[in-house]
Amino acid sequence: MENTVPMERSRTIQSHLVLPPDANHHLSIFGGKVLAYIDEVAAIASMKHAKSEIVTAAFDSVEFKSPAYVGDILELEAVVTSTGTTSMEVYVKVKTINFRTREEKITTESFVTNVAIDSKGKPIPVPSVYPETEEEKVLFERGLLRRQERMKKRNK
Amino acid sequence: MENTVPMERSRTIQSHLVLPPDANHHLSIFGGKVLAYIDEVAAIASMKHAKSEIVTAAFDSVEFKSPAYVGDILELEAVVTSTGTTSMEVYVKVKTINFRTREEKITTESFVTNVAIDSKGKPIPVPSVYPETEEEKVLFERGLLRRQERMKKRNK
Amino acid sequence: MENTVPMERSRTIQSHLVLPPDANHHLSIFGGKVLAYIDEVAAIASMKHAKSEIVTAAFDSVEFKSPAYVGDILELEAVVTSTGTTSMEVYVKVKTINFRTREEKITTESFVTNVAIDSKGKPIPVPSVYPETEEEKVLFERGLLRRQERMKKRNK
Amino acid sequence: MENTVPMERSRTIQSHLVLPPDANHHLSIFGGKVLAYIDEVAAIASMKHAKSEIVTAAFDSVEFKSPAYVGDILELEAVVTSTGTTSMEVYVKVKTINFRTREEKITTESFVTNVAIDSKGKPIPVPSVYPETEEEKVLFERGLLRRQERMKKRNK
Amino acid sequence: MENTVPMERSRTIQSHLVLPPDANHHLSIFGGKVLAYIDEVAAIASMKHAKSEIVTAAFDSVEFKSPAYVGDILELEAVVTSTGTTSMEVYVKVKTINFRTREEKITTESFVTNVAIDSKGKPIPVPSVYPETEEEKVLFERGLLRRQERMKKRNK
Amino acid sequence: MENTVPMERSRTIQSHLVLPPDANHHLSIFGGKVLAYIDEVAAIASMKHAKSEIVTAAFDSVEFKSPAYVGDILELEAVVTSTGTTSMEVYVKVKTINFRTREEKITTESFVTNVAIDSKGKPIPVPSVYPETEEEKVLFERGLLRRQERMKKRNK
Ligand SMILES: CC(C)(COP(=O)(O)OP(=O)(O)OC[C@H]1O[C@@H](n2cnc3c(N)ncnc32)[C@H](O)[C@@H]1OP(=O)(O)O)[C@@H](O)C(=O)NCCC(=O)NCCS
Ligand SMILES: CC(C)(COP(=O)(O)OP(=O)(O)OC[C@H]1O[C@@H](n2cnc3c(N)ncnc32)[C@H](O)[C@@H]1OP(=O)(O)O)[C@@H](O)C(=O)NCCC(=O)NCCS
Ligand SMILES: CC(C)(COP(=O)(O)OP(=O)(O)OC[C@H]1O[C@@H](n2cnc3c(N)ncnc32)[C@H](O)[C@@H]1OP(=O)(O)O)[C@@H](O)C(=O)NCCC(=O)NCCS
Ligand SMILES: CC(C)(COP(=O)(O)OP(=O)(O)OC[C@H]1O[C@@H](n2cnc3c(N)ncnc32)[C@H](O)[C@@H]1OP(=O)(O)O)[C@@H](O)C(=O)NCCC(=O)NCCS
Repeated sequence: MENTVPMERSRTIQSHLVLPPDANHHLSIFGGKVLAYIDEVAAIASMKHAKSEIVTAAFDSVEFKSPAYVGDILELEAVVTSTGTTSMEVYVKVKTINFRTREEKITTESFVTNVAIDSKGKPIPVPSVYPETEEEKVLFERGLLRRQERMKKRNK
Repeated sequence: MENTVPMERSRTIQSHLVLPPDANHHLSIFGGKVLAYIDEVAAIASMKHAKSEIVTAAFDSVEFKSPAYVGDILELEAVVTSTGTTSMEVYVKVKTINFRTREEKITTESFVTNVAIDSKGKPIPVPSVYPETEEEKVLFERGLLRRQERMKKRNK
Repeated sequence: MENTVPMERSRTIQSHLVLPPDANHHLSIFGGKVLAYIDEVAAIASMKHAKSEIVTAAFDSVEFKSPAYVGDILELEAVVTSTGTTSMEVYVKVKTINFRTREEKITTESFVTNVAIDSKGKPIPVPSVYPETEEEKVLFERGLLRRQERMKKRNK
Repeated sequence: MENTVPMERSRTIQSHLVLPPDANHHLSIFGGKVLAYIDEVAAIASMKHAKSEIVTAAFDSVEFKSPAYVGDILELEAVVTSTGTTSMEVYVKVKTINFRTREEKITTESFVTNVAIDSKGKPIPVPSVYPETEEEKVLFERGLLRRQERMKKRNK
Repeated sequence: MENTVPMERSRTIQSHLVLPPDANHHLSIFGGKVLAYIDEVAAIASMKHAKSEIVTAAFDSVEFKSPAYVGDILELEAVVTSTGTTSMEVYVKVKTINFRTREEKITTESFVTNVAIDSKGKPIPVPSVYPETEEEKVLFERGLLRRQERMKKRNK
Repeated sequence: MENTVPMERSRTIQSHLVLPPDANHHLSIFGGKVLAYIDEVAAIASMKHAKSEIVTAAFDSVEFKSPAYVGDILELEAVVTSTGTTSMEVYVKVKTINFRTREEKITTESFVTNVAIDSKGKPIPVPSVYPETEEEKVLFERGLLRRQERMKKRNK
């Protein structure tokens, strides 16, 4: 196993057209559909980081800040921002692009925790991650704090 | 509009067979699929409560405690547990049933915040909710606390 | 194997939002979609009863009494109502709820026959079923009659 | 409106590969999936006959005579066999083809009743149907009988 | 293995209703959806011809000549028109039927190349094909030419 | 309307996990599924370029060079490489990533022609495109040649 991997290695992008099956009959996308997309893109990012299969252990709380409509472009970007022994924290940003105006809005942001597993589903170690750009460093440095808050919550 | 509605009125149950399209190739269900089911059952519960359309405003953090496999039965139960002016908190419990042994496991629990909207997507008032059974009372009483924690988090 | 199981043990509920992919472009749900939901909920009910896998052997005739539209809530309820040696008769009631008025309409009712199978697809015995409530007793008592009618039809 | 239309005009064929999402994890197709395919092919046949939109009014009882597995070819054929004022009876034959041996098996047969509707969902008259081949004549002549049996059943 | 098989043996028909999930929000079907249908019907035709599994090796260029809308009937017809050692050329014609007028339009035509494979994915020989009708003969005779053009293109 | 837009503006990336519903039962992805993904990502790229809705006019010939399996990561990248009056040529590259080894393979490459349309489906002018990097320049310069070849083919 490599010991450490640059954050960039896991970066994963997914662009979608919002389609009728993703939306209610007011043509606004379901929150559940957005969460399913987040889970998929976070899975790919952490598989790239860990070079192994993964399972989703947890989602931090998620706020849907603005709706996306059928016909809009949804763009998700995921990157592994922090690691434990077997778990990875993945940051996912979701924005909606109005293609007529090129206006972009943040739909939601989310931190997902994935755990690397072997073929029997047992957790296995992952390499650590290191940031390179300024933006990556900010995400990285607050990672430890976020892990502690999650731990505190689970032990309540 | 009615002023207040018993919790029972919104109770909604959804049973599913876990099927191959819901799962990775180790046949274990995707977290994103579970979240999409939670969103749907919470939407139905809050539509029954508010007698209106709704949008999903937020999900509290979610932990996936045990996996569900293709062939398992997944059972979701949702109920409106607390209300604001236009928002409703919905509690959703997801359990997995091994049909061979009738053994049941909690897969995850979640609190979803939905907002009642009119046909233009503008928030509209909802009736309040009241608990009847002991179990409902516990869920109801801690509702205020959970709302305050969410508020604090959003203002950070 | 248990010898006999209360009807209640198999009771299974499934609530759905009628969504655009389930409907034609007049937004009215396809009959075939309703039948696919009936098949799923009946399968879950009979798996709970038999503690085994099942296959669908037959559907009694089905009448679609009132349409359901995109945006409506569809609520299915299934229960095992009668048993043979390896087969189970499952009663499924489908109702549509207009969430704005809480008005409920029966969309259709159906009797499905499922057969318990082992891992090679060979039929295996199922426990018998017994009714507890008055409503269950009515469903149970007419079960024998329905079995005889089915038999007669197949021998024609 | 034409007065009468040959049976052949409505004949509709649909071939499918049975795929993993259509099947349980023993790779055998769900009864509900077959019924959804029957509903679609019957809808197309009756739209061709009536030159109008239709809704599904009823399914006669259906027996699943032999399973189809993932990888098999499913072939459905539908034809309008009898007409009332606004309703059409559609006969659908479903066979499974094992492509390795070219062996064919009847999976199920079904009679579906569809009703022609205008854009408001109100029933509208359909042309009558006439058979040309011997096989069509057999299907046609027993149509009246089947209609009477359905009537009798509904009035019980 | 048979040495040679009539073209008719592989003929495969697939009728579809264009549904909301197949279309953009102007209700016009996606080109990608049409291509996915073409791939499925060509796969069935070549499986019938070769009595084996197949993979898709190539699509010739495709022009979408006229749109199909939600509510239209799409009718695909596929037939194996030419063979190499392990590969088959499949001609697929896609037409759109306006059910109100019975007017038919060619949506697109396509030549797909499929390769017969064994259970390990290795190419295996296929029987040759022979045409019977005049229409089949035209398709068959130009087959060699099309193969040569493809070869030339691949060697560029 | 802007007169001219850098190629980079339309660049669109889509990462997918290959899932069981995308694949045959040997777990190898369907060619038709890949083409549907190509169509979606090309549509997004050309909508970003033209700031309008689009329809798919044509696909150049496509060769599937190596299979992708369930569990693999599929990565598509699309960019507008050449423009006419109302049409855009979009280059799409599809690669498969084996996440265990980080080995990447080209699955296929494709040129899609999309046409910008107004709300009635009538073709409307698009801005021209200009390349910035060396790689973009190569794609751009051969664009005219490819357009001429397509024209020649259509006039045959
Ligand atoms: C996630 C899972 C593998 C953890 O198993 P476990 O027995 O708790 O294993 P461990 O205690 O060794 O924990 C493994 C890692 O997961 C982390 N983890 C476990 N639960 C977590 C949670 N709720 N939030 C954040 N991290 C969590 C642990 O902190 C540990 O991280 P570390 O190795 O970096 O320190 C297990 O709970 C599981 O299989 N859950 C279901 C996953 C799933 O199928 N999800 C999809 C939908 S149900
Ligand atoms: C949810 C939404 C309607 C709130 O709009 P808003 O302009 O913030 O409206 P308000 O400030 O009047 O808030 C309305 C209610 O929502 C609650 N709310 C808003 N954001 C919230 C959040 N992140 N968490 C919990 N509650 C929230 C408010 O507290 C308020 O509740 P109350 O009336 O009970 O006091 C808006 O943010 C939205 O449309 N989001 C997208 C929803 C969506 O489409 N989701 C699906 C996937 S994107
Ligand atoms: C198609 C495939 C099996 C060919 O493998 P290969 O190693 O090139 O095998 P061969 O050279 O023996 O060629 C086998 C046949 O395919 C034909 N073939 C290969 N590539 C072709 C192409 N691009 N266009 C037309 N025919 C082609 C060959 O001409 C040969 O035909 P013949 O036996 O009739 O003379 C291989 O490229 C493959 O697996 N591709 C991926 C297929 C796939 O999974 N598609 C779905 C989406 S990715
Ligand atoms: C594509 C379509 C709009 C072209 O309409 P048209 O009446 O031929 O319009 P025009 O002759 O003005 O052509 C418009 C542009 O499309 C281009 N075009 C048309 N057919 C083409 C083809 N087969 N290949 C490449 N370009 C093509 C023309 O060259 C022209 O480009 P330019 O303006 O850059 O010079 C029309 O054929 C159509 O609607 N097809 C169906 C599209 C669709 O629904 N696809 C999805 C699946 S069916």
